[in-house]
Amino acid sequence: MTAPQSFSFSVMATDGRARRGEISMPRGTVRTPAFMPVGTAGTVKAMYPDQVRALGSDIILGNTYHLMLRPGAERVARLGGLHEFARWPWPILTDSGGFQVMSLSKLRKITEQGVTFRSHIDGVPYELTPERSIEIQGLLDSDIQMQLDECTALPAKRDAIEKAMELSLRWAERCKAAFGKQPGKAMFGIVQGGDVAALRERSAIALRELDLKGYAVGGLAVGEPQEVMLDMLDVSCALLPEDRPRYLMGVGTPDDILKSVARGIDMFDCVMPTRAGRHGLAYTRRGKINLKNARHADDPRPLDEESDCTASRDFSRAYLHHLVKSGEVLGAMLLTWNNLAYYQSLMADIRAAIEAGRFVDRAAAITEGWERGDLPPL
Amino acid sequence: MTAPQSFSFSVMATDGRARRGEISMPRGTVRTPAFMPVGTAGTVKAMYPDQVRALGSDIILGNTYHLMLRPGAERVARLGGLHEFARWPWPILTDSGGFQVMSLSKLRKITEQGVTFRSHIDGVPYELTPERSIEIQGLLDSDIQMQLDECTALPAKRDAIEKAMELSLRWAERCKAAFGKQPGKAMFGIVQGGDVAALRERSAIALRELDLKGYAVGGLAVGEPQEVMLDMLDVSCALLPEDRPRYLMGVGTPDDILKSVARGIDMFDCVMPTRAGRHGLAYTRRGKINLKNARHADDPRPLDEESDCTASRDFSRAYLHHLVKSGEVLGAMLLTWNNLAYYQSLMADIRAAIEAGRFVDRAAAITEGWERGDLPPL
Repeated sequence: MTAPQSFSFSVMATDGRARRGEISMPRGTVRTPAFMPVGTAGTVKAMYPDQVRALGSDIILGNTYHLMLRPGAERVARLGGLHEFARWPWPILTDSGGFQVMSLSKLRKITEQGVTFRSHIDGVPYELTPERSIEIQGLLDSDIQMQLDECTALPAKRDAIEKAMELSLRWAERCKAAFGKQPGKAMFGIVQGGDVAALRERSAIALRELDLKGYAVGGLAVGEPQEVMLDMLDVSCALLPEDRPRYLMGVGTPDDILKSVARGIDMFDCVMPTRAGRHGLAYTRRGKINLKNARHADDPRPLDEESDCTASRDFSRAYLHHLVKSGEVLGAMLLTWNNLAYYQSLMADIRAAIEAGRFVDRAAAITEGWERGDLPPL
Repeated sequence: MTAPQSFSFSVMATDGRARRGEISMPRGTVRTPAFMPVGTAGTVKAMYPDQVRALGSDIILGNTYHLMLRPGAERVARLGGLHEFARWPWPILTDSGGFQVMSLSKLRKITEQGVTFRSHIDGVPYELTPERSIEIQGLLDSDIQMQLDECTALPAKRDAIEKAMELSLRWAERCKAAFGKQPGKAMFGIVQGGDVAALRERSAIALRELDLKGYAVGGLAVGEPQEVMLDMLDVSCALLPEDRPRYLMGVGTPDDILKSVARGIDMFDCVMPTRAGRHGLAYTRRGKINLKNARHADDPRPLDEESDCTASRDFSRAYLHHLVKSGEVLGAMLLTWNNLAYYQSLMADIRAAIEAGRFVDRAAAITEGWERGDLPPL
């Protein structure tokens, strides 16, 4: 089969508002709904790239902010791009850098032109404009590039939310112009507007007019209750074109994912499975398990005896507890592996359920499993 | 093929004083000269057990001191022993705990009876006698157990060295009695005597009379020059029985290994490849490479383009440099993997050379490779 030359999206099945689709691009196909493991600085932490792939990851995310500071976008380009650098020949999505400039950098200042800031690593000053963000993402050779936007932490005043949303719209236009025509790649716009329905509507409509290849919903899971997030998804998705992929940025828990798929979201990324894995927490079909808890110290049972994943099935809770308590690297390696395996198996489960027209029932059964909770202690 | 019921050692080929042998026991065969990766607290740090095995490791080492403190020997026994706990069904050698009591614990006190100390983790008091050390190693279900000994850091006064050596001999007898008859397992004695040839001789002769299944040379690589270590090996190996395996404890660099094999040593363990891997250092056929060095930042070449190991062959030095500089777990994972792969390929190389009667030439060629040094910068 010849690799496609252009970026395209097709919805193969729907079940309610949930969609089963495929994003096709030269480096590979992304089965949606998709979860994208976060490869912050060119590595999905504590995982070998082949392992990430073997779990069914069709695409990973790279963070422009981290990569522009270290090792530097021009360096990555000289080394053949991020795929070659990180030994991940399959699709990569990069964020714009904007979100982490806001959360990590020092002395940041936003103007119409862009954002200036100092590196949190060494204090070196940088400027990130919409054009530079797209340039960097191009140097990384990213397959799906995100517009630069301003994301407002919630709660926030309506004025501040509106101002950031309007600025983000103007930046979307500049990013679109900077991106130009690249048939095999895509630039996605980002719906902003905080927790204000009218602003979300304004943002979605304006972005839709830009006729972008895909749309993200940003500025959610930033402090608001889950119901507010879901309401904003309802508002946003209703106005986004049916024939373009929809990406909910930075979300979320398995429950967030189920509920967002039900509202028409196709793509997710989140640090939760990888970060939790480095902090002794396991995501399973029986909910979240804290391996630091002493109840596991003498428990010979694995996290999930029915899992296909070695980390979940072949190592005892007692051993995982020991590794976590001892600060052993293998603890982070095994729990991250378990967590990504669980997330990817959840996505496969969701995709199969949509195809079979049983999404609501399946989501209820999955939720029931979490609510039933972990195995009783021995 | 049925697993053997008893512990045995046979020398299949010799080349000068270098020996190519096999230690056979119910859990597997150890091809000697052998390098045993150190699995301190029930994990070879930053490696999955299957990876360690796939590199050609026939046996790993577990540290009694660490395991007795956490998770505790009785707990490991309840969980089915160390092999089951750590998912390593092949042979395991455990040290006696004595060496790390001396280097890590607090308020330690040695008497004829044994050693009392407080845990470096939580200050809990423990007593380790020769009998308790063997009991713990039995609870761990260790295949090769080491006698409790007192190891003197060098330089030291002759009186202190002699006293520790004589105490170690008396403890060897008590360990032998405590170990009793276990046909499928072995208890090794440890030659002590610091850098004093006459004391090494006295120790080796006395241990030989105990008719143990194997003998270690301990108390070396503890501060003395390499020539002194090699002299002590000459003295010790000459007096140890030809038909028992000889294990040089805690050694060493690849060069130490080559020179010790030439003197009749069959087994090695050392934290160097694993520890160095967590500190940005790579062992290769071109010597030791410091990945933190800026010369690697733009170098697309792998550590060793001819290696069979993914970590050595498929990832660029630029990427490894980036991972190490960024403190990414994957850096430790890849460099530890590379280092253990190099150590095990060195051992395979040594074994093949002894079999072919070309050990001296091969050792010279390997040494020449290290001395030629790393690739010139691009």
